[in-house]
Amino acid sequence: MNSDQLSDQRLQEALKTAYLRGKEVTGKGAVATYIPELGKARPEAVGLCITTKDGKVYKAGDSNIRFTMQSVSKLLSLAMALEIRGYDTVFEHVGMEPSGVAFNSIVELDTRTKPHNPLINAGAIAVESLLIEYKQFEDMLNFARTVCLDPEITLNRQVYNSEMATCDRNRAIAYLLKSKNVIHTNVDTSIELYTKICSINVSAESLANFAMVLANGGVNPLNGERLLKESTAQTVKAIMFTCGMYDGSGTFAVEVGIPTKSGVGGGLLSVVDGKMGIGVYGPSLDENGNSIAGITALKYLSKELGLHMFA
Amino acid sequence: MNSDQLSDQRLQEALKTAYLRGKEVTGKGAVATYIPELGKARPEAVGLCITTKDGKVYKAGDSNIRFTMQSVSKLLSLAMALEIRGYDTVFEHVGMEPSGVAFNSIVELDTRTKPHNPLINAGAIAVESLLIEYKQFEDMLNFARTVCLDPEITLNRQVYNSEMATCDRNRAIAYLLKSKNVIHTNVDTSIELYTKICSINVSAESLANFAMVLANGGVNPLNGERLLKESTAQTVKAIMFTCGMYDGSGTFAVEVGIPTKSGVGGGLLSVVDGKMGIGVYGPSLDENGNSIAGITALKYLSKELGLHMFA
Amino acid sequence: MNSDQLSDQRLQEALKTAYLRGKEVTGKGAVATYIPELGKARPEAVGLCITTKDGKVYKAGDSNIRFTMQSVSKLLSLAMALEIRGYDTVFEHVGMEPSGVAFNSIVELDTRTKPHNPLINAGAIAVESLLIEYKQFEDMLNFARTVCLDPEITLNRQVYNSEMATCDRNRAIAYLLKSKNVIHTNVDTSIELYTKICSINVSAESLANFAMVLANGGVNPLNGERLLKESTAQTVKAIMFTCGMYDGSGTFAVEVGIPTKSGVGGGLLSVVDGKMGIGVYGPSLDENGNSIAGITALKYLSKELGLHMFA
Amino acid sequence: MNSDQLSDQRLQEALKTAYLRGKEVTGKGAVATYIPELGKARPEAVGLCITTKDGKVYKAGDSNIRFTMQSVSKLLSLAMALEIRGYDTVFEHVGMEPSGVAFNSIVELDTRTKPHNPLINAGAIAVESLLIEYKQFEDMLNFARTVCLDPEITLNRQVYNSEMATCDRNRAIAYLLKSKNVIHTNVDTSIELYTKICSINVSAESLANFAMVLANGGVNPLNGERLLKESTAQTVKAIMFTCGMYDGSGTFAVEVGIPTKSGVGGGLLSVVDGKMGIGVYGPSLDENGNSIAGITALKYLSKELGLHMFA
Repeated sequence: MNSDQLSDQRLQEALKTAYLRGKEVTGKGAVATYIPELGKARPEAVGLCITTKDGKVYKAGDSNIRFTMQSVSKLLSLAMALEIRGYDTVFEHVGMEPSGVAFNSIVELDTRTKPHNPLINAGAIAVESLLIEYKQFEDMLNFARTVCLDPEITLNRQVYNSEMATCDRNRAIAYLLKSKNVIHTNVDTSIELYTKICSINVSAESLANFAMVLANGGVNPLNGERLLKESTAQTVKAIMFTCGMYDGSGTFAVEVGIPTKSGVGGGLLSVVDGKMGIGVYGPSLDENGNSIAGITALKYLSKELGLHMFA
Repeated sequence: MNSDQLSDQRLQEALKTAYLRGKEVTGKGAVATYIPELGKARPEAVGLCITTKDGKVYKAGDSNIRFTMQSVSKLLSLAMALEIRGYDTVFEHVGMEPSGVAFNSIVELDTRTKPHNPLINAGAIAVESLLIEYKQFEDMLNFARTVCLDPEITLNRQVYNSEMATCDRNRAIAYLLKSKNVIHTNVDTSIELYTKICSINVSAESLANFAMVLANGGVNPLNGERLLKESTAQTVKAIMFTCGMYDGSGTFAVEVGIPTKSGVGGGLLSVVDGKMGIGVYGPSLDENGNSIAGITALKYLSKELGLHMFA
Repeated sequence: MNSDQLSDQRLQEALKTAYLRGKEVTGKGAVATYIPELGKARPEAVGLCITTKDGKVYKAGDSNIRFTMQSVSKLLSLAMALEIRGYDTVFEHVGMEPSGVAFNSIVELDTRTKPHNPLINAGAIAVESLLIEYKQFEDMLNFARTVCLDPEITLNRQVYNSEMATCDRNRAIAYLLKSKNVIHTNVDTSIELYTKICSINVSAESLANFAMVLANGGVNPLNGERLLKESTAQTVKAIMFTCGMYDGSGTFAVEVGIPTKSGVGGGLLSVVDGKMGIGVYGPSLDENGNSIAGITALKYLSKELGLHMFA
Repeated sequence: MNSDQLSDQRLQEALKTAYLRGKEVTGKGAVATYIPELGKARPEAVGLCITTKDGKVYKAGDSNIRFTMQSVSKLLSLAMALEIRGYDTVFEHVGMEPSGVAFNSIVELDTRTKPHNPLINAGAIAVESLLIEYKQFEDMLNFARTVCLDPEITLNRQVYNSEMATCDRNRAIAYLLKSKNVIHTNVDTSIELYTKICSINVSAESLANFAMVLANGGVNPLNGERLLKESTAQTVKAIMFTCGMYDGSGTFAVEVGIPTKSGVGGGLLSVVDGKMGIGVYGPSLDENGNSIAGITALKYLSKELGLHMFA
């Protein structure tokens, strides 16, 4: 596929169909309720946004509704840590292997010297602990605004408070990491930062923008400004492809073939390398905690537009 | 064997030989250092004490040195919880199966609904959390003084402070238990109580006394006073036999055959059912964290005096 | 408890009540069907037999029905290997720790140098492989007749053939043991021998007799003949207590407190040390694969007659 | 990168440097010896071959030495099964998730309904069992000759015999798969076929050719003949990327970024999608069982020529 050959019309039509396909299946999933505040989302909401390197923006449905980034924010933390602390330091504290286990696993953590990868909770907590001496949450919020090309991003206080009340498992992970000398920060501080970053409000369009920057090697294609090092973008994309969808990462790589990261807030961020970014909102989740409408829409787009990495 | 048939002289001689055998091997182990304050123990110290149902006390070596109870205190907590909360409530929150894994394992905990048994850290934290609404640490200290027939038992503040500074793994366990709804208490409170009970100062004689009370079905044989329900003593002894020596419990059951609980402070508490209690102090530990002199001495006593459960 | 003090009448009455209690619950379990031939058993059958050191025999129900020994035969193999190859050789090839996992587990086997213990399939296959150069199946059959005081024991060909057709998992275990150099025999030969020993026909009375011999330290109390070394009986009893009921061994030790081994044929062999042997037949199994009537009957007998090890 | 822009000279020079870099490190690894016949390889041998879509062939070192395909053959079996049995049938019997464990793991297999993916031993045995009713080994040999554009491929009888003598672990895996109803074939037949396919003799050039066909969507670029369905090539490449290097797959994806499959015979097959195939021979292996010279050479080529998927 060559994005240049994708006419406006074809893209817009494909997006509309993808949206409708996604809409159809929202009833088969359910919104996350383990964080009570997330349970208030409208399950039938679906929003899609594609932004291309040449500056075009395509939207369908609720593409400007705000929702919390949740695990999609692990990409932000990884990117920022790579920029500030460097590749070697980051990967002394976290691996880059798929875990084959659930996002919040402790089981496997204990037998290893460091978390499997930066896209599971344990790995993200380790990555963020590398940032604590260097950056405040405000800095990370500004970083998010920059790479998402979205100055409107803010902290969602209700979700943050709701999550802080239900984060015992993440505290367990952080204390285990501390006992294994992977992190050396105060656990309360680490968990607060981790939870705040999860709780920032984005839209499908913000995610599409960040994905587009990654697709374009770290450069904002609209003005040529470099926002991330090329090596940072490359590392983030490779890890997204192998580890982005938790224990369903391999299947997603085969069936959809687009590096993607999901969050339980209903967000999906997909990088069509060299071409475009795709952002999705769809809070009705499948049994793996991924947006059920989003997966359906991405499968359709991958096939219809030939977006599979190995197509 | 019938304790009545064991003459004073034979017991005293066996104890002396056991002491010398233990003394010989202290150089092959090492004192625990992961809690810095424990590292100050004299590795060559060995103390043994036997107390029999008919009120006789036999001693050898450093039988009155004070040391912290550590994991032997898990017996205290289990006994007290059985007395106050009852069998059913206790075992709704903790299992009674050997874990086959290390004392501070998290690995296996995550796949289960409750800790394996009350004699590993996770299980003891769960058990103590059942006591928090009902009892203060002072009450538990008094309980220890009562069942050990030892009013001199106190909290060792130095060890307590040292442990509190290195208990991240136990905090991880407690938060995991909380996230799984096994405990509902404040984690800081639970960890404080857990660590305090681990840090109380006993002697080999105190342990022998508690063991004798258990051997005698919960009754102080010296004055006939019932200190524990018969069912409590029975349950504690059975769990000691199958789970008391961590992942070496099975081997110890075959080779020594005396229900025993160890602690990294160097203590061992052994119940020769219906006959006597044995207390050991020997801070030089083998690779499993058990007193190396103590194991050697108990093996000798078991053979020499025919104390094996199935002899 | 002192068996001498148990009058004939009290024992007989307790046994009758235990039988009725067991009978009541047979409908709550189911006969094993993974070996098709076992599926033909009458689920409502229940047989109990107690044999005491002083030569008395108490029976209730279907105590003389023949059924296959299945996993109870692991005691035979362990005892014979201890007699012929010795303690050290046996435990170089198998551990003595409870596994905390199911009888036919492979999961945990791969991370260890040898099977957990001789009473799970992997351990029994390892133990029997030690016998292959020394003994034929006929020798083992005769050994069974001797220790069960039952010359009528024979191979059940139908069950044997049925099991040989469904033993892929055991073959997997045997090949894994071979690849780890735990066994060096031909796998086909090992599996044949293993399956044959599982398929010998016993009755509740045969099991009670073998249990009585173990309870009496390896000596046939009826004629004073030593059938097993004292050390063999001691080792077998200790391992039964900690490992005899698979992943329910700890709970059984606490709640019933009698060293017992179960088989999916519906048999249970229980050793009341120094006192008596108990044999059970009850092919309706609970979810752990243990005779549901048998467990119920043993719980009753333990309480009623004070047979708990720590009572 | 655009392969059209890579001049002959630049490619040839990069290949030569890659060869020298690889040659330098051969002393840091060791040839496989667990299959005795493999132990006879010259550890210092290194061969590289690149074949491009426009028909050019670049070689360095021992690019025409014959060696056995070993695990690289798992790609052949997967491709053939996808062609003959179809995507749905194949993935009913095997997953597509990275395992995070070693190539011959049994540990994790037992807790799942099917093997993790087709590129570990368990998965490959499952895939090949799907072929047994449909194809003989001769058919698979011919398939290998076709997709490798190499009519000289033959079975290496010495290696085959050597492997058959040391395949107890694979037999264990096969019997476990049979007991779980993943395979229904005779285990001996399955293991023979599996071992034969591992034992076919290829060269670095054969592997480069097969890789080029995959890079070209299943079509032989030299004559336009379609050898594999486009969907087969796509699936194989995606699984190679996430699962091709065992428990080092994630790290390789980040650091090299080229879908690659390794074998303990020293082979590596790398697909630079849409551009070229790379084949490597280097029997000195690193601790993960991958060609140490090959990894070094591929890292260099990826950087120097910009071959990383996300570059």
